[in-house]
Amino acid sequence: MSPEKERGSKGLSRRGLFTAAGAGGLGLAAGAAGAFAVDRERGRSTDDVVPFHGTHQAGITTEAQDRMHTAAFDVTASTRASLVSLLRDWTRAAEAMTAGLEIGETGAADGAYDSPPEDTGEAQDLHASHLSVTFGFGRTLFEKDGADRFGIADKLPAALIDLPLFSGDALEENRSGGDLIVQACADDPQVAVHAVRNLARIAFGRARVRWSQTGFGRTASTSTAQVTPRNLFGFKDGTSNLKLQDGAQLEEHVWVSGSPASESWLDGGTYLVFRRIRMHIETWDRTTLREQEAVTGRTKREGAPLSGGEEFTAPDFGLQGRSGPLIDPASHLALAHPDHNNGVRMLRRGYNYVDGSDGLGRLDAGQAFIAFVVDPRTHYVPMQSAMSKSDLLAEYLRHTGSGLFAVPPGIEAGGYIGDTLFGS
Amino acid sequence: MSPEKERGSKGLSRRGLFTAAGAGGLGLAAGAAGAFAVDRERGRSTDDVVPFHGTHQAGITTEAQDRMHTAAFDVTASTRASLVSLLRDWTRAAEAMTAGLEIGETGAADGAYDSPPEDTGEAQDLHASHLSVTFGFGRTLFEKDGADRFGIADKLPAALIDLPLFSGDALEENRSGGDLIVQACADDPQVAVHAVRNLARIAFGRARVRWSQTGFGRTASTSTAQVTPRNLFGFKDGTSNLKLQDGAQLEEHVWVSGSPASESWLDGGTYLVFRRIRMHIETWDRTTLREQEAVTGRTKREGAPLSGGEEFTAPDFGLQGRSGPLIDPASHLALAHPDHNNGVRMLRRGYNYVDGSDGLGRLDAGQAFIAFVVDPRTHYVPMQSAMSKSDLLAEYLRHTGSGLFAVPPGIEAGGYIGDTLFGS
Repeated sequence: MSPEKERGSKGLSRRGLFTAAGAGGLGLAAGAAGAFAVDRERGRSTDDVVPFHGTHQAGITTEAQDRMHTAAFDVTASTRASLVSLLRDWTRAAEAMTAGLEIGETGAADGAYDSPPEDTGEAQDLHASHLSVTFGFGRTLFEKDGADRFGIADKLPAALIDLPLFSGDALEENRSGGDLIVQACADDPQVAVHAVRNLARIAFGRARVRWSQTGFGRTASTSTAQVTPRNLFGFKDGTSNLKLQDGAQLEEHVWVSGSPASESWLDGGTYLVFRRIRMHIETWDRTTLREQEAVTGRTKREGAPLSGGEEFTAPDFGLQGRSGPLIDPASHLALAHPDHNNGVRMLRRGYNYVDGSDGLGRLDAGQAFIAFVVDPRTHYVPMQSAMSKSDLLAEYLRHTGSGLFAVPPGIEAGGYIGDTLFGS
Repeated sequence: MSPEKERGSKGLSRRGLFTAAGAGGLGLAAGAAGAFAVDRERGRSTDDVVPFHGTHQAGITTEAQDRMHTAAFDVTASTRASLVSLLRDWTRAAEAMTAGLEIGETGAADGAYDSPPEDTGEAQDLHASHLSVTFGFGRTLFEKDGADRFGIADKLPAALIDLPLFSGDALEENRSGGDLIVQACADDPQVAVHAVRNLARIAFGRARVRWSQTGFGRTASTSTAQVTPRNLFGFKDGTSNLKLQDGAQLEEHVWVSGSPASESWLDGGTYLVFRRIRMHIETWDRTTLREQEAVTGRTKREGAPLSGGEEFTAPDFGLQGRSGPLIDPASHLALAHPDHNNGVRMLRRGYNYVDGSDGLGRLDAGQAFIAFVVDPRTHYVPMQSAMSKSDLLAEYLRHTGSGLFAVPPGIEAGGYIGDTLFGS
């Protein structure tokens, strides 16, 4: 960014001077100094900036922030050029926002008085807040109703399948699917909401929001530096999650590599599985502690496997109690464990949600499940098939939304998200 | 709370010992020490505790926390005794939760193994987080379909009116009204959600959730120590809000006093006005900066009145520009200003919200407006009547939910919320 642009968007603004002057010169010093201080602070908040550029996109192995706003979009653009222009614009906006800057050259309030501001402005006093923005492509972007919409049908990855309908699924059309996905995570919910809202605005005429989901409490750790959070069943969730420190395991279970030529654009990327899982918390809250722990396979306070030890003790599925194995083979712990899933692991990065109530006296609460995997055919479908049929926990869950997206690799400065697919 | 109870709910638990022993003695030391450390920390987090007891309820002049979960309930109990038992149980639970403690004597995981835990547990590792829980009574609690349901019809305050239908209202039945309201605010959304969820659970069989609303960014300051936050239009909101430091003004505009005998139970209380205001952010985002500032009456960056100065400069409604007053008389600033509302002021304490999308490609976003006033007939209805008809901002807003509740005074230890109404 040139010094001129830097000053235009961040420094003492001409708009600020104009307004103060237009008001008869009142408060010029105070107003101008105030604006400058705020802008300098925002531009300087590098202590809580997550770098946008890199080999992989941010927001995957990034230490999980506590707030999330994710939205899926349907592309309304009819040409490849228009789609690419959207991806370029989104990239530039994400670069600015993740750096704690306003969008565009004039930001929220320094542009022409007779134009809409380039940035909607609700984050202008807030820090970068570890914002990460992660983009993905749905199957329908490659092929929809048999049409090759954007000339990329021959690059559709084999693993970007239509997820099968799992036992008990109650998917809602307007909470599922989408051509594009944007996952925004931050320490401050207003920063995450600002990101999605501005990307939606930028997309006007080219893509529109299909569904949108906020979340407030991460349901897994992605770093050994984080404590394991609790889900809305009151249990620690994600104890055995992959962590950013698990280098070799991430290569094996998360990052795509060595793809055939038609899919090589995805090398360095991954797949994002989204499931909106409503939890029947009212039913859960009436079950006994014994049942809750048996269903989960862990103790409620410690999160220790029922075979003993503490949270991070490896479960002993063979250990017998008086009436059978201490860990029920149909418990969530058993069914989700790598030992029972051909050794596969996933990087979960979901969030708790409460979306008001359902009109029947119950809270609409649960988990926005998000996982990143190297191949959903091996790393999600088999496990979810087994869990949806046998998991004792499934009785308390209902999947109401679903999506699968190919997440392209990260980019260097000057590139744009998807440039390995569409060409630079 | 006796030392025994304190130990039962907070200290080294029998359940913890039992589980560790049942697991063959593995990890006893680690597990027990871990539980103890967590519990001691939670019990000790008095640095972020908002006192529950006092002359007034907390959560009104309390320095506004950043996260909110508010729920309205319909009472299903058919007797006064059952309703009073609910209010007593809610009071005990709120006392515990606001102190950073688990609910009941055995909390989330120390109770009998064959009973549901007394606390749902998702907040067990979290601090008190400045949780406040504020209760209110709707008109329908006093009188519904002509029936005096709980023997309190003769104590219905005259100001607890049915709010009139305002111009442009698009109220949804399942986002409006309610016999009871519970406003939970905290620094951590999971703590606020935990509070409402557990109160809903305690109410089972006596009251059920009618509607529920979460919010993530306060839209007004209630203390001079706080900076003015921004709403989803990108403007500072609540600059001229009443603050907890405004002692005499709070007495005049917020706290009920000197009521006639039938209403004296409300002295020390106030009224809570709730409005779910959807903002047409997509339309707003396409308007010019000039229009946005004219409609608001303030500058976007500084929040200064268009008559000049900085944020807290008093607006000069008479100051003329080339084509009329610098502050449009139909601007939000002008219509909401005390000078144009018989000098009335209110204590606003609302939040921004995003509830996903609406299925038409738009975010369902806006403001959960909450205000506390001494009398809604003088302090809300006239202003909202004027604004709904003339406010330039109204074009960008749609009120989709509404409620009015009498908020009883605070209590001392041993009392219960509503005891001045129902008798101790």
